[in-house]
Amino acid sequence: MSENTLRRGRPGYDQQGILDVAVAAFNEYGYDATSMGVLADRLGLSKSAIYHHFTSKDEILDRALDSALSALEGVLEQADASTGRAADRLDLVLRGAVHVLVERLPSVTLLLRVRGNTEVERLALARRRAFDKRVTALVSEAQAEGSLRSDLDASVVSRLTFGMINSIVEWYRPGGGEDADRIADDVVAVALDGLRMPTANRVEDLLG
Amino acid sequence: MSENTLRRGRPGYDQQGILDVAVAAFNEYGYDATSMGVLADRLGLSKSAIYHHFTSKDEILDRALDSALSALEGVLEQADASTGRAADRLDLVLRGAVHVLVERLPSVTLLLRVRGNTEVERLALARRRAFDKRVTALVSEAQAEGSLRSDLDASVVSRLTFGMINSIVEWYRPGGGEDADRIADDVVAVALDGLRMPTANRVEDLLG
Repeated sequence: MSENTLRRGRPGYDQQGILDVAVAAFNEYGYDATSMGVLADRLGLSKSAIYHHFTSKDEILDRALDSALSALEGVLEQADASTGRAADRLDLVLRGAVHVLVERLPSVTLLLRVRGNTEVERLALARRRAFDKRVTALVSEAQAEGSLRSDLDASVVSRLTFGMINSIVEWYRPGGGEDADRIADDVVAVALDGLRMPTANRVEDLLG
Repeated sequence: MSENTLRRGRPGYDQQGILDVAVAAFNEYGYDATSMGVLADRLGLSKSAIYHHFTSKDEILDRALDSALSALEGVLEQADASTGRAADRLDLVLRGAVHVLVERLPSVTLLLRVRGNTEVERLALARRRAFDKRVTALVSEAQAEGSLRSDLDASVVSRLTFGMINSIVEWYRPGGGEDADRIADDVVAVALDGLRMPTANRVEDLLG
């Protein structure tokens, strides 16, 4: 046993390790159905060893949801910091969100299943709504600058686009051949350019 | 009490009525957490009154999932019966699926949460996969005929597009101002034409 595992008191799990196992259990059995006892069993730890790292099951949930939400909010911050047109910043947000989903699949999956049964869940839902609102504002800005079509309601556009992105948690399997960059390209291709054969080349031909 | 309710034995609920209440309960508490006793309480009926209509909780689930799946399969049948290009048939499928979601919101919501824990659920998942496969085949056909861009994998296209459509169950509220036709228009606009300002008008101008 190394000095490091001795210092942590329990071999094999640091705080992040416990969090990972907890999130997997919440996703498999549901948050309500996963007691601290069930978690302790899965970890092979005593309940008090878990309480050494987290004061409550609620705190574990809070940390997991914050991991997903902070990453998504970071994508918006990064896009806001760029000076491009709103349509280009939206492009960055869509790609960034796909990367967050793929890289933090378990915690985003958990976030998307939150229904607001506890105070922690309600705060997470409020942050999701704030995120959606900022995406909607970005869509509106792109419509106003004339780079996105303005015949669609900005909030419906934002819901449909993120519906497409969020669906990735249903079918993406790590190491399954699809990488995040490729999925991000595909999402942007569908959302911004659509599936019909592009007419852009024809326009260039005609202009040329 | 009318002759009709007397003949049914219990006032207020026929088979469809029991099904509606059961689906709402399954969506609210989860299928596993909803016992026949809980259902009887919610209906104000005895368990044996429910068993008069359904042999088991599984049969109720089966009927609810079949209602969603039959409607979705019907959309494919109808599109296949039309003689248009594959891209136009896909357009019909996307619009038809939006209508099914809006009109059968509770049973589709239930279908989308099925994880395959029972034989009934596994059969429903198999029907969903068969549906997805037929949509993917339609996308491939449209790519082959040259009406949809072929640089995207047909199965990813089908997943992303239905991800967008299925997300409707997360935010659509009956009577909330958005009608099914309008949402269907929006879905087709995003999926087929994309959000960027269309260049089609310019092509027509240049051709004219």
